[in-house]
Amino acid sequence: MNSESIRKLFEQVRAGKISPDEAVQRLRHLPFEDLGFAKVDHHRALRVGMPEVIFGQGKTPAQLAQIFSRLAKHDGNLLATRASQEQFAAVKKKVRGAEYHELARAIVLQRDKKEYGKGIIAVISAGTSDIPVAEEAVVTAEIMGNEVEHLYDVGVAGIHRLLANRETLTRARVVIVCAGMEGALPSVVGGLVGVPVIAVPTSVGYGASFKGVAALLGMMNSCASNVSVVNIDNGFGAGYVAALINRL
Amino acid sequence: MNSESIRKLFEQVRAGKISPDEAVQRLRHLPFEDLGFAKVDHHRALRVGMPEVIFGQGKTPAQLAQIFSRLAKHDGNLLATRASQEQFAAVKKKVRGAEYHELARAIVLQRDKKEYGKGIIAVISAGTSDIPVAEEAVVTAEIMGNEVEHLYDVGVAGIHRLLANRETLTRARVVIVCAGMEGALPSVVGGLVGVPVIAVPTSVGYGASFKGVAALLGMMNSCASNVSVVNIDNGFGAGYVAALINRL
Amino acid sequence: MNSESIRKLFEQVRAGKISPDEAVQRLRHLPFEDLGFAKVDHHRALRVGMPEVIFGQGKTPAQLAQIFSRLAKHDGNLLATRASQEQFAAVKKKVRGAEYHELARAIVLQRDKKEYGKGIIAVISAGTSDIPVAEEAVVTAEIMGNEVEHLYDVGVAGIHRLLANRETLTRARVVIVCAGMEGALPSVVGGLVGVPVIAVPTSVGYGASFKGVAALLGMMNSCASNVSVVNIDNGFGAGYVAALINRL
Amino acid sequence: MNSESIRKLFEQVRAGKISPDEAVQRLRHLPFEDLGFAKVDHHRALRVGMPEVIFGQGKTPAQLAQIFSRLAKHDGNLLATRASQEQFAAVKKKVRGAEYHELARAIVLQRDKKEYGKGIIAVISAGTSDIPVAEEAVVTAEIMGNEVEHLYDVGVAGIHRLLANRETLTRARVVIVCAGMEGALPSVVGGLVGVPVIAVPTSVGYGASFKGVAALLGMMNSCASNVSVVNIDNGFGAGYVAALINRL
Amino acid sequence: MNSESIRKLFEQVRAGKISPDEAVQRLRHLPFEDLGFAKVDHHRALRVGMPEVIFGQGKTPAQLAQIFSRLAKHDGNLLATRASQEQFAAVKKKVRGAEYHELARAIVLQRDKKEYGKGIIAVISAGTSDIPVAEEAVVTAEIMGNEVEHLYDVGVAGIHRLLANRETLTRARVVIVCAGMEGALPSVVGGLVGVPVIAVPTSVGYGASFKGVAALLGMMNSCASNVSVVNIDNGFGAGYVAALINRL
Amino acid sequence: MNSESIRKLFEQVRAGKISPDEAVQRLRHLPFEDLGFAKVDHHRALRVGMPEVIFGQGKTPAQLAQIFSRLAKHDGNLLATRASQEQFAAVKKKVRGAEYHELARAIVLQRDKKEYGKGIIAVISAGTSDIPVAEEAVVTAEIMGNEVEHLYDVGVAGIHRLLANRETLTRARVVIVCAGMEGALPSVVGGLVGVPVIAVPTSVGYGASFKGVAALLGMMNSCASNVSVVNIDNGFGAGYVAALINRL
Amino acid sequence: MNSESIRKLFEQVRAGKISPDEAVQRLRHLPFEDLGFAKVDHHRALRVGMPEVIFGQGKTPAQLAQIFSRLAKHDGNLLATRASQEQFAAVKKKVRGAEYHELARAIVLQRDKKEYGKGIIAVISAGTSDIPVAEEAVVTAEIMGNEVEHLYDVGVAGIHRLLANRETLTRARVVIVCAGMEGALPSVVGGLVGVPVIAVPTSVGYGASFKGVAALLGMMNSCASNVSVVNIDNGFGAGYVAALINRL
Amino acid sequence: MNSESIRKLFEQVRAGKISPDEAVQRLRHLPFEDLGFAKVDHHRALRVGMPEVIFGQGKTPAQLAQIFSRLAKHDGNLLATRASQEQFAAVKKKVRGAEYHELARAIVLQRDKKEYGKGIIAVISAGTSDIPVAEEAVVTAEIMGNEVEHLYDVGVAGIHRLLANRETLTRARVVIVCAGMEGALPSVVGGLVGVPVIAVPTSVGYGASFKGVAALLGMMNSCASNVSVVNIDNGFGAGYVAALINRL
Repeated sequence: MNSESIRKLFEQVRAGKISPDEAVQRLRHLPFEDLGFAKVDHHRALRVGMPEVIFGQGKTPAQLAQIFSRLAKHDGNLLATRASQEQFAAVKKKVRGAEYHELARAIVLQRDKKEYGKGIIAVISAGTSDIPVAEEAVVTAEIMGNEVEHLYDVGVAGIHRLLANRETLTRARVVIVCAGMEGALPSVVGGLVGVPVIAVPTSVGYGASFKGVAALLGMMNSCASNVSVVNIDNGFGAGYVAALINRL
Repeated sequence: MNSESIRKLFEQVRAGKISPDEAVQRLRHLPFEDLGFAKVDHHRALRVGMPEVIFGQGKTPAQLAQIFSRLAKHDGNLLATRASQEQFAAVKKKVRGAEYHELARAIVLQRDKKEYGKGIIAVISAGTSDIPVAEEAVVTAEIMGNEVEHLYDVGVAGIHRLLANRETLTRARVVIVCAGMEGALPSVVGGLVGVPVIAVPTSVGYGASFKGVAALLGMMNSCASNVSVVNIDNGFGAGYVAALINRL
Repeated sequence: MNSESIRKLFEQVRAGKISPDEAVQRLRHLPFEDLGFAKVDHHRALRVGMPEVIFGQGKTPAQLAQIFSRLAKHDGNLLATRASQEQFAAVKKKVRGAEYHELARAIVLQRDKKEYGKGIIAVISAGTSDIPVAEEAVVTAEIMGNEVEHLYDVGVAGIHRLLANRETLTRARVVIVCAGMEGALPSVVGGLVGVPVIAVPTSVGYGASFKGVAALLGMMNSCASNVSVVNIDNGFGAGYVAALINRL
Repeated sequence: MNSESIRKLFEQVRAGKISPDEAVQRLRHLPFEDLGFAKVDHHRALRVGMPEVIFGQGKTPAQLAQIFSRLAKHDGNLLATRASQEQFAAVKKKVRGAEYHELARAIVLQRDKKEYGKGIIAVISAGTSDIPVAEEAVVTAEIMGNEVEHLYDVGVAGIHRLLANRETLTRARVVIVCAGMEGALPSVVGGLVGVPVIAVPTSVGYGASFKGVAALLGMMNSCASNVSVVNIDNGFGAGYVAALINRL
Repeated sequence: MNSESIRKLFEQVRAGKISPDEAVQRLRHLPFEDLGFAKVDHHRALRVGMPEVIFGQGKTPAQLAQIFSRLAKHDGNLLATRASQEQFAAVKKKVRGAEYHELARAIVLQRDKKEYGKGIIAVISAGTSDIPVAEEAVVTAEIMGNEVEHLYDVGVAGIHRLLANRETLTRARVVIVCAGMEGALPSVVGGLVGVPVIAVPTSVGYGASFKGVAALLGMMNSCASNVSVVNIDNGFGAGYVAALINRL
Repeated sequence: MNSESIRKLFEQVRAGKISPDEAVQRLRHLPFEDLGFAKVDHHRALRVGMPEVIFGQGKTPAQLAQIFSRLAKHDGNLLATRASQEQFAAVKKKVRGAEYHELARAIVLQRDKKEYGKGIIAVISAGTSDIPVAEEAVVTAEIMGNEVEHLYDVGVAGIHRLLANRETLTRARVVIVCAGMEGALPSVVGGLVGVPVIAVPTSVGYGASFKGVAALLGMMNSCASNVSVVNIDNGFGAGYVAALINRL
Repeated sequence: MNSESIRKLFEQVRAGKISPDEAVQRLRHLPFEDLGFAKVDHHRALRVGMPEVIFGQGKTPAQLAQIFSRLAKHDGNLLATRASQEQFAAVKKKVRGAEYHELARAIVLQRDKKEYGKGIIAVISAGTSDIPVAEEAVVTAEIMGNEVEHLYDVGVAGIHRLLANRETLTRARVVIVCAGMEGALPSVVGGLVGVPVIAVPTSVGYGASFKGVAALLGMMNSCASNVSVVNIDNGFGAGYVAALINRL
Repeated sequence: MNSESIRKLFEQVRAGKISPDEAVQRLRHLPFEDLGFAKVDHHRALRVGMPEVIFGQGKTPAQLAQIFSRLAKHDGNLLATRASQEQFAAVKKKVRGAEYHELARAIVLQRDKKEYGKGIIAVISAGTSDIPVAEEAVVTAEIMGNEVEHLYDVGVAGIHRLLANRETLTRARVVIVCAGMEGALPSVVGGLVGVPVIAVPTSVGYGASFKGVAALLGMMNSCASNVSVVNIDNGFGAGYVAALINRL
């Protein structure tokens, strides 16, 4: 509801080009259409300059394929997260260019390959089990036009492995850190860099890890001031926020 | 442990300018000194280009004043958060230029007034009770050289008040949103802007708000993709992260 | 134990029409019968003027069919919630008129089609994944004789979609809002209408949503005063309460 | 943003009565003013037909008195909840007609004494310690123009006391039930009446009551279908929702 | 609502001794009176054969004294739990025979000194800090006419102290065990005796004891089959249940 | 380590009937034997006068059958709880007299059919879904020699059904109450009887019932003084405690 | 109940030196005496070779002084933890040699100054606020005859400060690590040393630190294999366990 | 980064044996290699003198076999925990000497059979269901060169079984105690021995055991001072810590 377009509307009314009734209709004609079970907002990508994103989990392959192909009729990139091989098979039949990132469990349709990011996004994981979440962040950042470097299995109990790769950290304009269990890695990384760190707790662990809660709490209480946190296993969110930051 | 300076060290050793023993000592001579009860790292500001920060809560006025005045001997800005009037009185006696922000409960010593931020940081609060946390974010962002605009008491139950101020949102390069109770405001703001949103849950509320836990969970589960979260009542952290982003 | 009928009993005793012993028996003769594994209260519908409701989950198809057909021998409407296709198949064999609402996972037998509600009940969902819960509310409200309008996928991160449908909200006499994740929608809707809002947290989400707990807490702490809350995924309860309100 | 007034605006523009610029301004001129620390929305009462409400807790007597007196300049009723004797003393000096309900900890200024409710609201408490919360509900319902009957200390461990008062329940159009500890009373009451029951968990109890959490969970899981729940100790919310229902 | 008295009522009506109207009134005339803020049920003691009990916490000395003296006008014993010295002073002025048990924080008025229990109740505490809760159980059991033996400071980390007193355990007909911290004592005691064990978690401990939650969970999960549990710090409840058992 | 038998041991030593070495051995010869994976204590039944009990869950059919048949070689009754049909089939092959209670999921071998209980144990369930837990209590109490009466599906939302069966309650010497969801039934029952009530929270419910936690908390906070609680779904424990009480 | 002393008892009985009755008495005469409110076990120190320890919190100065002086009559060291200045003043009057460690809040009476430990115990704290807990560990380890080195304020966000002190770590035979907030330090330290690490979560932090719960969970989930954990703020326990290990 | 090797590096540079550039490279050449998905640190075993450990859970048989065989190329022992039969089959094909411990769910390759431990490690379990966790501790301690004695099914409800085996306890230099449900056993054992006790909560139990949380809390709050705790079901960690202690 940008004031410029509203002013134009008033001017057109004053000029008699459109009637008040029509003006009211136009004000209301917001840019989304109705698929019956989901209102897809084509213009959202324009508004925030970002690709359309579909949360795949809990949708049948048919539902996902329908939404995906519908959105694919418009320009721009598409990303379906938490997507299975079965869902991808259904999508692939309808949308030729779609690709599947198995580790990241993501379906992407990348038509806009422009570089939007201004620097490098570093994606770090504490253990090998955290890699799927890290890869979701990688795929997200990449489809949003960013150069990504990753650094996996550099958990805090072997701090020398992280320190041996400090140059990767130093190069990054934003850092994403994925860790389960005690979730300590973002604090250590946060102390080593002077840029924003996005922490992603993962559900990796057992017992008192409570499916990521221990890691989440650890990250919320980070003694490093440059750390902010997204939801457990939310690699997508971390990639998205990092991409926004890297655009600035 | 920048590889450039290490290389120089090796070169000086090769050139016979310093002995191996001395080189080892220099490697170890990390930049901090010992106050007895707290090792103050003077170089940290240099390293990350940020002011020194002291967490005031739980320190006696005397302790806080001692640390504050010690740090004040070096250049750069100083910020003491969660500081009381009593603590400020003690600091003021030792450090003339120190100022107190009552709402933010912050003591600042701002000597470097350079503008580091490249745009505006918007700080938003859902209710009037969230203002102290929001003000801590404001003070933090300002001492780090940022222009800040605030927008208070625009909670989601009166959505028109937020919408009436969309231009402030549109101007911002980063947005900080402080909210207690259900913590819904960051999701709404996140949907209205295309820039990173730092959400700060506050302990405002009663009963099932569990001193900020309800708000924290709400923000962690935000349906807006551009939201990341810091600890409950951590206005400082939000301001710090926002300042880092706004520098980029 | 209405005092009128008790008085009559005393009068009949005084008039010698019935003996004290018989009177005591009548007092005790409460209206339910014993199926062995569940005491079905046929008169409950009369007492509160509502259909019989069976909670399908955890019952075998045979058990559900037995209870359903037994209750079907009496007048009035029947609703089985949390019912599977298998359970419906078993019921269908015994009760011809029974119908299945797949999205709502509900079996209904609607014989009384009278309009009891005095206005429109609006049922709103934040996302497409919340629709099954919303549909349970719709089916419940409809079998209780209400006109229902629904508005799906209007979550707070795209607030313009909700605002574009404010007229639906304005028409409603009661509003039901189903939302998972951060559960923020009822607060926003609550601020837009002047009628009671029944909030239903859903178990939609992942990680720190804790199967609906985050949404539940968000709704309990709503800053809108006209919101009350039912259990996680309890679309039935919301529809029931809304129907009671809409009758008044 | 009622479409009628917008259409009028367009018509005035077409008629040349106001300029597009002015029209844009009017669209923006939303009805609230800035007190500096809280934006008070005078029109909100008009919009939802309800009194202005101030949450007293955490405000200084001076702050509360300032907001109260400011709002008192407009018509309609005023209610300050969670207010102390000290706060009332400050308010009383500025607003003569203000009265204090000690049990309910509420300050009221009732100028509109019209009866808005169409029936009786019954307010029930399980124990004597729940009475302050119940009284907050009573005061809220009364200032919103409702006739209220209360029934206190009728907890489930002495079920005969509740049953002895079934007529009060039968008369009510809406029932509010306040209970701490196990929070069982709303379920029992819900089974005895055919009208909506608003349950208010209270923080009464000790040990595993967890300041109202046990009661809250009990009420969320009520086996009675006509129960919805508000926050712990939120007598105001219950009274507000009940008043909205009783108006219908 | 004993059927015998109801039958008599019917017979009196048949005999014309009382009118139907009066009969209805008598049915309703349940045995409690209204103090304004609490309905005191004088007949409850008769019904369950137990003393009247007042929960002192949260009541002003004046309120407690008023209820206490009112109840003292009837026969039987009185017990006020969680009572302070101040409350006792107020009670003492109105009721001469009242006595204060400082450790147990209980006021008692014991007029019926009959022995109702058929054996010995053993009350055990794990540590010295658990003694106040244990003493509340002792006082409760004694005022209900039981012989009590206690055994304090016999926690599981010094198991020989417990074993050295096995004869006390062997003599008991019911055992009450109070323990904070890990709450392990009831399991050990449960394995040593063949009679019912009532476990009372206490709020003694710090850190991860969570004010009695750790002990409560420990007791709920006891591997001894003869253990049941009451609320945290609920010495009264344990004494009450034990007294009921010991009467059988 | 009864002092009588120890004294005898000393006397036998003094009399020269046994040597000190042998005496030490006898002291140590505690009554259990080693199956390799579980030490089965044959004398425990003697010690506490109760049947042997095996927790079936998590054991393979072969393991359960082995333990069961081993114990069956000694006298007395046997009970295996949480046992499946498969486990029973394996047991049945080895122990002819074993019987399976399907609802209770219990295998019993009842050789001692003596009546140990002195009165009736009433077992009550709130809903039909709570019956398996209630039946476990029934089977346990019966194998321990008690007469049991049950009363199922008398939840608090239909309080008249419970009241209509007050005579069953009145007859009971101990009452077991099984309830899920809000767990309110024990409080109501507790208020109606003057005997001990054992409350069993069940995992019946959904959403905020948290698999029995809501019911557990409700029961821990019962406002009825005669209620003690066992673990969630622990019908066995309730039956065991009730049987111990009923023996007294 | 050492078998050697029992055998002697039997031999004395056989030899007719003591009667069976007296033997039974001696068996029972376990080494503790009764202070009325606490059974003090003088021999426990002998048994485990450790000083007597009194938990000061919750005891009045008089109570603490009485227990302290009583224990002081026997040999060996004494330690009172969680002790205030007031408690120390009371102790000091009765026991001359007692000393107070203010930071550690501990009263010690060290008469046995023998070195029991075989190496160095390193005590590390993440921040300055964790020092009181660390000092409690230091005092405990020292009174148990150990050489202690400490390293404070070396939290993970400034990892270079820890690395600069690796030699202290390398020297240690056992390491105690105290940390609040995210509790990440033990994991990092654990990865740097090859000896046992005792982790102590502290209640330092705010918001989602939940008074040490976040740190506790972080430590329980440590990715370093050599870490075990004690209760929140339990510096004493850590010092005690470390001293036991260092004796081996 | 041992200072000795660094000094050598400097000396070689001074001596002109290596160039500064090469020196920088060597500093960086940390001892691990890249498998693509996991950086395996061969030197870690050297550093801490311990076997390589692989956490099997969540890895495919192929992944586990690849890591296992890769590590097997170096000397020393290997341990894969939480490994299934399927994983073992895959490992067995690549590494002949690998063996599977079914109860412990562990794959071991033991080439170094040297005795490193200096005494006996006792491993105790409360119930038979805790044995898998206990066996993981046994296998871990054994592969690290320790003599282990176990004592199973000696839970606190049958304390005589534990006491009958006190000699095993007395012999041990370190004790590991595994217990689920109420987790009380470590406290009792802790009081019986004067050596360090490592407590392992297990997820054994149901209802309010919350998959090991009750046991974990019980152990954290142990009243025995010599108890420290590892994560739920973390038999490996307990064995590892015990082995480190037993080496000292």
